[in-house]
Amino acid sequence: MSGENGRVAVRSEMRWNGWGDPARASDLPRAVRMLLPLLLGRPQKPATAVNLAEVRVEPSALLDGDLQALTAVVGAEHIDTADESRIRHAGGRSTPDLLRRRQREQASPDAVVLPGSHDEVAALLRVCADRGIAVIPFGGGTSVVGALDPDRGAHRAVISLDLRRLSGLIRLDEVSGEACLAAGTAGPEAEALLAAQGFELGHYPQSFRYATIGGFAAARSSGQNSAGHGRFDSMVTGLRVATPTGDIDLGRSPGSAAGPDLIRVFLGSEGIFGVITEVRVRVHPVPRERVLESWSFADFSHGVDGLRQVAQNGGGPTVIRLSDEAETAVSLAQVGRIGKALAKGASIVTVYEGDGIGERRARTSEILMTAGGVSSGASGAEGWLDGRFDGPYLRDSLLDAGVFCETLETATTWSNLHHLRAEITAALRGGFAAAGAKSYVMCHVSHVYPTGASLYFTVLANLRSDPLEEWAEIKRRVNDSIIAAGGTISHHHAVGRDHAPWLEKEIGETGVRILAAIKRELDPTWILNPGAVIMSDRSA
Amino acid sequence: MSGENGRVAVRSEMRWNGWGDPARASDLPRAVRMLLPLLLGRPQKPATAVNLAEVRVEPSALLDGDLQALTAVVGAEHIDTADESRIRHAGGRSTPDLLRRRQREQASPDAVVLPGSHDEVAALLRVCADRGIAVIPFGGGTSVVGALDPDRGAHRAVISLDLRRLSGLIRLDEVSGEACLAAGTAGPEAEALLAAQGFELGHYPQSFRYATIGGFAAARSSGQNSAGHGRFDSMVTGLRVATPTGDIDLGRSPGSAAGPDLIRVFLGSEGIFGVITEVRVRVHPVPRERVLESWSFADFSHGVDGLRQVAQNGGGPTVIRLSDEAETAVSLAQVGRIGKALAKGASIVTVYEGDGIGERRARTSEILMTAGGVSSGASGAEGWLDGRFDGPYLRDSLLDAGVFCETLETATTWSNLHHLRAEITAALRGGFAAAGAKSYVMCHVSHVYPTGASLYFTVLANLRSDPLEEWAEIKRRVNDSIIAAGGTISHHHAVGRDHAPWLEKEIGETGVRILAAIKRELDPTWILNPGAVIMSDRSA
Repeated sequence: MSGENGRVAVRSEMRWNGWGDPARASDLPRAVRMLLPLLLGRPQKPATAVNLAEVRVEPSALLDGDLQALTAVVGAEHIDTADESRIRHAGGRSTPDLLRRRQREQASPDAVVLPGSHDEVAALLRVCADRGIAVIPFGGGTSVVGALDPDRGAHRAVISLDLRRLSGLIRLDEVSGEACLAAGTAGPEAEALLAAQGFELGHYPQSFRYATIGGFAAARSSGQNSAGHGRFDSMVTGLRVATPTGDIDLGRSPGSAAGPDLIRVFLGSEGIFGVITEVRVRVHPVPRERVLESWSFADFSHGVDGLRQVAQNGGGPTVIRLSDEAETAVSLAQVGRIGKALAKGASIVTVYEGDGIGERRARTSEILMTAGGVSSGASGAEGWLDGRFDGPYLRDSLLDAGVFCETLETATTWSNLHHLRAEITAALRGGFAAAGAKSYVMCHVSHVYPTGASLYFTVLANLRSDPLEEWAEIKRRVNDSIIAAGGTISHHHAVGRDHAPWLEKEIGETGVRILAAIKRELDPTWILNPGAVIMSDRSA
Repeated sequence: MSGENGRVAVRSEMRWNGWGDPARASDLPRAVRMLLPLLLGRPQKPATAVNLAEVRVEPSALLDGDLQALTAVVGAEHIDTADESRIRHAGGRSTPDLLRRRQREQASPDAVVLPGSHDEVAALLRVCADRGIAVIPFGGGTSVVGALDPDRGAHRAVISLDLRRLSGLIRLDEVSGEACLAAGTAGPEAEALLAAQGFELGHYPQSFRYATIGGFAAARSSGQNSAGHGRFDSMVTGLRVATPTGDIDLGRSPGSAAGPDLIRVFLGSEGIFGVITEVRVRVHPVPRERVLESWSFADFSHGVDGLRQVAQNGGGPTVIRLSDEAETAVSLAQVGRIGKALAKGASIVTVYEGDGIGERRARTSEILMTAGGVSSGASGAEGWLDGRFDGPYLRDSLLDAGVFCETLETATTWSNLHHLRAEITAALRGGFAAAGAKSYVMCHVSHVYPTGASLYFTVLANLRSDPLEEWAEIKRRVNDSIIAAGGTISHHHAVGRDHAPWLEKEIGETGVRILAAIKRELDPTWILNPGAVIMSDRSA
């Protein structure tokens, strides 16, 4: 039905069963390989990864009439029913996603459809609503919370709506510092287009190299420069959205009291209300200068005190992040300083970009020194900066070496931060211990606010016979502990399907009723990303 | 039914038919009295104001059964059916509100009910939903957009739900810098409670002396210190809300990706979805220092350039506001510098509070000088600071002197600011001219963002025979011009009933459908503030 062989030429694809550029996949750094047996004992050999060609998917459930109707909107060349494309759109990049891709039988969407304009998106949604086909909006494919699972809901088929053709800088208002970007524009492409005009968006989550502007908005992303530029929520000044029952164009002014801010209804909606097609964002001139500095602290607690005071003082670094003792040790090992890795202590990385660096750094340094910090120069921060998008490559190498590796994150007030961290750590350690696995839990704080901060955990464990099932049970424990200890179920990974069962515990029955009411109004047949954010069984 | 004489002892009341403390009402300053004939010609004598005792309201439409049911929740002493209280809760403080209060026949709510707790609010909403009684949540009574009109909607009666008994500091988390305040706490009371613990909220809209914390949230207020502390939206970290169909408690963490931010559904909801009973806010230490400085510019346009660069640079003043030539002239006249008032030019007021004032001021001064500004010392800024809450008193004096005076406001991007200002100015001048009245239009910019700013207009005109009707027509012209020229229908006054007909032009039919869907879910019998924000005829 599409092209000569049912495939569409696409821009550089990620590894289908791992992260990023296949050419960059690599073995574990030697120091990490040495460290792992000390932390986790001897690894088990993991299940052998299957090749893409060995994976079996069900035949596409789309009927000829469906394909004709979709073709009428986007043309045959933009409908892809080849197994490879369907498999490549079968999910995101959580560790469970990657483990599932080692299996021979996999669920997948029935086709990948690539609209070329806002109007085509709107028309596709009408076609799918009429014909009862579920739609999973797809940006960079980097979800780690199951937001891209090919879930049909109550429908007979499901398509992946790949937005890569909605790409580019639509408008730049240099006076106002506002850019309008097509939703399918990937991070590096957006920054390159803006940089050509002297501007920067400055949103650098770990998924930056693949994730899209629309995905940042739909999932309420938070980037590494959040101390300086805020989370993605605060960068968005306008949205254009297609829903199955009508379009909406939001964001007339930078501040407004014209009723509730409906932009915020779509930020974090993860495609369940509509498909974001254009995003207007605040941009700033490309920074001319960058200064890096690392700090050592006796322990995590002293580091938190310093971080809190920097956040509450304002006007500090562009990036500030604190690694606990366990993460500091492994980070040092990674960059080959294995000797130092045995030293106790926590570490802070600071990066300053933009104007007034001298003053901002002086103020920040004074606070960090008073909190007990000792400057350790630029090299630690340089190491972080160089590798800041490479964590997922390391995870691939660990999985191949038989080491389970996954991340999770939350946030809370400063006064509750230590309690929440202790509870989550206990849930992780207890969970792996109950499964008979050794584990190593690391934590960092990478997003700070005047009233609180995020907590980001990385856990390593030796793989057991059924890691998917074991991790599901441990993750349940962890999510329960987050809710019980007053954290949010996600600070920046979003809800997807993985966190949906916990959302009601966070926002209450009334909160879920509000989301379901909006859903029923905009998507009455519940075709959009069924099962994500709010569970399908709440459908009217 | 309530107390011995149907009245409830209440805290210091505003003038029933004007602004603020009756003891502070005063004549026009001499310089303004001299200036007015030059600007507007000889004033017409206004309609004589009636005394409160002369006002006639309809008998309360509440049935004995209603009063019994309400009494069962709050007790007889907290239900007030006296004419005076009903008249005092009959509306807000827009100029049309004040003009209506010069009439003998007035609409009013059928009772004023004063709940003492969140649970009482929730119970009252259930009683009113069961019995078909509309509910107008009432904080400080300072709305200028008709949000407090005693509109019954489709119901047989309407009560004013006065929240003054929900007052006080519920919790203060000193480490996190987060305070939980009862929604009925008035601005000065909130600041006094926080100051006793060394903290400040720092939200100072012109309505500060009377408006409440819940009102700030419900109406998306923006205070004079918005350059330093942001609009009220950005201060709110949590909300507790009672709706007719259930409670909701929001705001687990300072940043979250747990679905859309539902706090934002209630900020700006103006009581149509539920009644906000508690508000958690970000607070900061009481500033130890304050520095004031005024600046003169050749014209408004140069001033805007300076303002924009300060806003885009960040880390500048706590307050920054620019008055155009017309407002600068009248401000100078008000402080007795009538000679200077004839000089051309625009003026900027800056106020710096908190830490790092030296650096922030140096950076700001350099930008303003480069933009053509000349420092004019502290006295102009001191004059503004002294009188910053007194504008409404001046309006009362003007109305008494036969001069119509009203304000309106909007916001847009920096690149659209001059166009929008010109269109609104033309609509105002043209509107008054068409009504045969001379007018004087002043404008200031008092809220700045990286991507744009607010525009706030004050218009003076000689009163004609039917100012209410004439102004209604002029205001329609202005609102149409705001929408046509790309502004928001309100930057911080909110929607109420006055702006409701224009909201759909701003957020589109899909936007109004979203609001109506939430309304139907939370308030299915449409008892809450019917006609505000979204028009009642959209009720399901």
